[in-house]
Amino acid sequence: MTRLKMGMIGGGIGSFIGDVHRKAASIDGMIDLVCGAFSSSEEKSIASAETLGISKQRAYANYEQMLIEEAKLPEKERMDFVAIVTPNHMHFPPAKMALEHGFHVICDKPMTLTLEEAIELETIVNSSEKVFALTHNYTGYPMVKQAKTMISKGDLGAIRKINVQYLQGWLATSIEKTGQKQAAWRVDPSKSGIGGALGDIGTHAENLVEYISGIQISELAADLSAFGDGRVLDDDGNILLRFENGAKGTMSFSQIATGEENNLGIKIYGTKGSIEWYQENPNELIVRWLDKPKQIYTPGGNGGYPEASEYVRIPAGHPEGYLEGFATIYRSFALEVQNINSGGIPSNLPDFPTVKDGLRGMKFIYACVESSKNNTAWTKI
Amino acid sequence: MTRLKMGMIGGGIGSFIGDVHRKAASIDGMIDLVCGAFSSSEEKSIASAETLGISKQRAYANYEQMLIEEAKLPEKERMDFVAIVTPNHMHFPPAKMALEHGFHVICDKPMTLTLEEAIELETIVNSSEKVFALTHNYTGYPMVKQAKTMISKGDLGAIRKINVQYLQGWLATSIEKTGQKQAAWRVDPSKSGIGGALGDIGTHAENLVEYISGIQISELAADLSAFGDGRVLDDDGNILLRFENGAKGTMSFSQIATGEENNLGIKIYGTKGSIEWYQENPNELIVRWLDKPKQIYTPGGNGGYPEASEYVRIPAGHPEGYLEGFATIYRSFALEVQNINSGGIPSNLPDFPTVKDGLRGMKFIYACVESSKNNTAWTKI
Amino acid sequence: MTRLKMGMIGGGIGSFIGDVHRKAASIDGMIDLVCGAFSSSEEKSIASAETLGISKQRAYANYEQMLIEEAKLPEKERMDFVAIVTPNHMHFPPAKMALEHGFHVICDKPMTLTLEEAIELETIVNSSEKVFALTHNYTGYPMVKQAKTMISKGDLGAIRKINVQYLQGWLATSIEKTGQKQAAWRVDPSKSGIGGALGDIGTHAENLVEYISGIQISELAADLSAFGDGRVLDDDGNILLRFENGAKGTMSFSQIATGEENNLGIKIYGTKGSIEWYQENPNELIVRWLDKPKQIYTPGGNGGYPEASEYVRIPAGHPEGYLEGFATIYRSFALEVQNINSGGIPSNLPDFPTVKDGLRGMKFIYACVESSKNNTAWTKI
Amino acid sequence: MTRLKMGMIGGGIGSFIGDVHRKAASIDGMIDLVCGAFSSSEEKSIASAETLGISKQRAYANYEQMLIEEAKLPEKERMDFVAIVTPNHMHFPPAKMALEHGFHVICDKPMTLTLEEAIELETIVNSSEKVFALTHNYTGYPMVKQAKTMISKGDLGAIRKINVQYLQGWLATSIEKTGQKQAAWRVDPSKSGIGGALGDIGTHAENLVEYISGIQISELAADLSAFGDGRVLDDDGNILLRFENGAKGTMSFSQIATGEENNLGIKIYGTKGSIEWYQENPNELIVRWLDKPKQIYTPGGNGGYPEASEYVRIPAGHPEGYLEGFATIYRSFALEVQNINSGGIPSNLPDFPTVKDGLRGMKFIYACVESSKNNTAWTKI
Repeated sequence: MTRLKMGMIGGGIGSFIGDVHRKAASIDGMIDLVCGAFSSSEEKSIASAETLGISKQRAYANYEQMLIEEAKLPEKERMDFVAIVTPNHMHFPPAKMALEHGFHVICDKPMTLTLEEAIELETIVNSSEKVFALTHNYTGYPMVKQAKTMISKGDLGAIRKINVQYLQGWLATSIEKTGQKQAAWRVDPSKSGIGGALGDIGTHAENLVEYISGIQISELAADLSAFGDGRVLDDDGNILLRFENGAKGTMSFSQIATGEENNLGIKIYGTKGSIEWYQENPNELIVRWLDKPKQIYTPGGNGGYPEASEYVRIPAGHPEGYLEGFATIYRSFALEVQNINSGGIPSNLPDFPTVKDGLRGMKFIYACVESSKNNTAWTKI
Repeated sequence: MTRLKMGMIGGGIGSFIGDVHRKAASIDGMIDLVCGAFSSSEEKSIASAETLGISKQRAYANYEQMLIEEAKLPEKERMDFVAIVTPNHMHFPPAKMALEHGFHVICDKPMTLTLEEAIELETIVNSSEKVFALTHNYTGYPMVKQAKTMISKGDLGAIRKINVQYLQGWLATSIEKTGQKQAAWRVDPSKSGIGGALGDIGTHAENLVEYISGIQISELAADLSAFGDGRVLDDDGNILLRFENGAKGTMSFSQIATGEENNLGIKIYGTKGSIEWYQENPNELIVRWLDKPKQIYTPGGNGGYPEASEYVRIPAGHPEGYLEGFATIYRSFALEVQNINSGGIPSNLPDFPTVKDGLRGMKFIYACVESSKNNTAWTKI
Repeated sequence: MTRLKMGMIGGGIGSFIGDVHRKAASIDGMIDLVCGAFSSSEEKSIASAETLGISKQRAYANYEQMLIEEAKLPEKERMDFVAIVTPNHMHFPPAKMALEHGFHVICDKPMTLTLEEAIELETIVNSSEKVFALTHNYTGYPMVKQAKTMISKGDLGAIRKINVQYLQGWLATSIEKTGQKQAAWRVDPSKSGIGGALGDIGTHAENLVEYISGIQISELAADLSAFGDGRVLDDDGNILLRFENGAKGTMSFSQIATGEENNLGIKIYGTKGSIEWYQENPNELIVRWLDKPKQIYTPGGNGGYPEASEYVRIPAGHPEGYLEGFATIYRSFALEVQNINSGGIPSNLPDFPTVKDGLRGMKFIYACVESSKNNTAWTKI
Repeated sequence: MTRLKMGMIGGGIGSFIGDVHRKAASIDGMIDLVCGAFSSSEEKSIASAETLGISKQRAYANYEQMLIEEAKLPEKERMDFVAIVTPNHMHFPPAKMALEHGFHVICDKPMTLTLEEAIELETIVNSSEKVFALTHNYTGYPMVKQAKTMISKGDLGAIRKINVQYLQGWLATSIEKTGQKQAAWRVDPSKSGIGGALGDIGTHAENLVEYISGIQISELAADLSAFGDGRVLDDDGNILLRFENGAKGTMSFSQIATGEENNLGIKIYGTKGSIEWYQENPNELIVRWLDKPKQIYTPGGNGGYPEASEYVRIPAGHPEGYLEGFATIYRSFALEVQNINSGGIPSNLPDFPTVKDGLRGMKFIYACVESSKNNTAWTKI
């Protein structure tokens, strides 16, 4: 096995998501961080590199410099891919440039600042021969894959009802006014785009629903709100969903749900059975049946499908968490990069979120905002 | 203490809800069942009376006969009130006649078959000097009262978001076609009214939301569905809610949520804290806070408000269930009947659901049906 | 159905367990309370009767008077059975006298103050033609019966390991010194016997283990403690168990387990599967298997055995609690009393705890105390 | 930050615990695996190295060779420490030799095959200037540290009762006879020592109890069993505990608890409050109080002590699991190695299990076996 070399854009000292990406990339021993443009300040970028045990020479002042300089390095030395972990407005420019300079890309979500960028990025990715992955990390949990597999095999019958929620409370007060960096850019449309909580967590909920169910939302009716004092972007939303197969559902997301930490949860009801899953307790999948007692599936536990169990790193009863789920996206991405780097044919169905998922997420954001502006009119995605 | 004498309309052998009413009325030792028109078949009514240990003389052929005959009995002997436990279309006629014959009434929900009946019944009740209670029994749980009290005292701050669900799966298949009686009348508009699951359980959800939060739903946008083969009434609904104080929310109810038993649950988020409660595990109230760890309140346990603890019959850790919650409605009703019977002034705020709640429930049903017909347009209650 | 007439010994106003017995006896509409010697003070006994809606004439000054006077009444009028709800030292004398005066008896646990009394009571019961039941109420929960049935049918294979706990915290401080009545008699050997928490809750744990598993404890090694200041009786105990079939286990009980309410829980492991159950959440039975996912059984839910489901009063998802479990003991007792009263043959296996269970509980108490005095030596029951 | 270089002894392809150690060492980006004697077969060792992306030159035939050859390498190149992940009988010899060759050591548990080895190893470690850590990984969970901190600050008052369990079911059938490698060596005294499940998981329970409570077990009374057909070592044990401060308790461990995965759980009761924690749901710490509602603490959540929160890698609500807890031991070990390598003074209280914990674990094993042989006699550790 050849270990892959990762360059990072963003994610300097103090960044939450940068650290998550690094740990997730490390867990499976397939990826080494070798360089980075960790900050828009060169000084901070270098300081970050030092803390991370990376040579000063490969701490770049900005992503353009990094992409240009790394491309000049001998193949054995230069990075294989970039991880983009900046705020939303800085996803598209480096992604585009990286692909154009021959690097694979793994990028945080939502994919871009605007729908136009997303459309353009899809074209760029499709015409490149590079791998592009989006870190909708919640699809990496084994029990999410178990649920998806059960549905795709028809165990639950025809899907009729879906309820999804993503509830956080960290913006219940206006902490963006206190200088909290994570909050500050998220409530700023120039950095976040037209969705607030919608883009930040609503897209995760949308992706999870479609990933597990295998069914697309056809139209939605959204009621977005900004409860926080002076906020222009939504911090809460309630949405009715209609699916392409006739199923119905609800989505409720919030960042002002006081006391909630990171409560992403989903319930999917079919004609034969149903599933229920919560991210905060990710190693339990609750399955209900028409005529059998309720079951609790666990990673690596009895009754798990191979399609889920292959993603389990440790025996049943040894809980895996957020980082491992995230790492699964990185591992699947790394396997595809190794495949492509060694001349393989691109996978038709890579097991990680792709540019298509990213584009879909942006369309979802735009449909929600449009519906909400139209007093919750049904709006097609 | 003088024990009260109850007459029952409906609730013959094999009835689910009649038996629930009888057990609930018995628990606190304040009420004796003395007579009944248990069935539209006189034979069955008599057989039911025998099983229940009631003298044959007071098993009536129909409710009209019962009301007329009982009214003739000496005061010490005749029933004090009627419990109406028939399908929806048989709520209004006996309620009206009972009140007009001088009997107090406790009635199952939804209150009437039509909105018109509900409006008329309110007038009748208000002009009578009798007590009328509606068995929205879920408000009888101590942890529901704890939640209500915490909100009314301002512990959670201003309410901003409410999610409520009422999920059952017993109509996931078309059991009404197999002769299942409970199912058969519920899917029949002539007996259920214009709401299916909406009237049967949606009204419970609506009542619970407004009871706990103390805030009224101002408008709603509903998407009702009939998934069951050949059903004309809804068996599933997803609804967006807007509240008079600016709060937003969702309601999702279903009787086709495969595998769910009786999953009524509610989450209410305020600026300072939030509550979460599930009927299937009714002795836990989850409370989250801006800046303190999550708490679990229990009936009679530490930190409970007297407004809740007074409804607890047994020490903390001894679970009370559905029947006890139901019994609490009966007890509060019985106390008010004793009050009125002994010449007291009617309570302004009796602690049981009244004709106002019943009327509100009917308006809710009508608003949902109208909204759904108008492609989910926002509709005022 | 002829309703049975109950007389109560003890259980005056303010009594916890007397009220529980009354409510439990009422739920199923088979029993009416008609008389009582509710207190050792005649005045209080009369006051209690009034509150309970019982005629003053049948509020007796003491149990002797009640038994004598009731026996003189015509059969149609006199009580059918007595419920003994006094502290432990007042179980044997009224039970003996009641049986000798021709009354059936239902009695709280532990059965007697001393082992000698228990042995004598067994003889008295066996030579009488009366029904005697002991309120080990926790055996009345449907999920306890489901567990028992699964084991008796061999679903779990051969039983190898049992862990049982009964944890309360209400005596964590010395509330008996503050005049708390419930605490005061429980820490007093003249009223409790040689076991403190051991007799009060340890016997429930012992009974539950043997009831569910169908296997007897053969020997035990006990370490009893009195943590409360000045207590002479145990308030905590840890016990190793060996069963007649070779299974091993532990019991831990406590009334000084700070913060615990009424946490009776049990885990039983067989060669094929295992069960786990907690009294505070009694409507869930957790079942684990060698090779299938974990299951959650619910009363009346999918997969329940008829032997359990017949004890369920309301549909799945409508929780039943402590009072209903208690009521199940009363109902089974009442059915047997009706059977005997109508000349039936005594049931070989009545579904309520009998004098045998009571004697076994007393032997358990004595074995634990002996073992603990002998520095935890293995001691046969 | 200088990254540390790790050599591994054992942990070849297919090893469970070797992979865990590698992932745990990787997560925080402080450690690189550079060499290994991954297997007693040179061929397998080389194959493992290749899979792991390690140069063939540093895949050694055995640990002796590795220690000798690595010691010859220039300081910048040679490994800093060894991770010993072999079965128990192969802990002491490489640990001793590694320390003698100037390498720090991190070792799996139980520390040695025999008590004599443990005593000798303590002497060796103490006279060396090297860091020695033992991977009692469960002490790495943030909520374990929260519990420990609450107790050490006196929040729970004086500790009076402790119940600990470690329940697995994977040896419920005799899978060692089917060639399952993990099972085979664990049931073999020549590789496991005198304890079976006792050494494998009982020592984790013992360590967790003493780590969280800060109190030592003074004596114990053990009943060990071998349920598996033909097993000579225990696969189940039930133990009474007495603590140095007068607290009492129980331990129950098993590898034949059918259906259990990895159910390590602990309850500790003090005079003011109590804690409850389960490894399978490690991000919840249940805290009960004398006079306040039950609380649920979460990593990084409200109310967490800095002593726990500093170990949290990601925001509250983002679950961390087994690997992260394990990684915390590695990180603390790595920090101390960096400290020593850069000439620092050894930490008095390093935050990882040390040779003292390892020796204590071996004494615990021996005391249990002795007690069990003496028919459960109280035995001092």
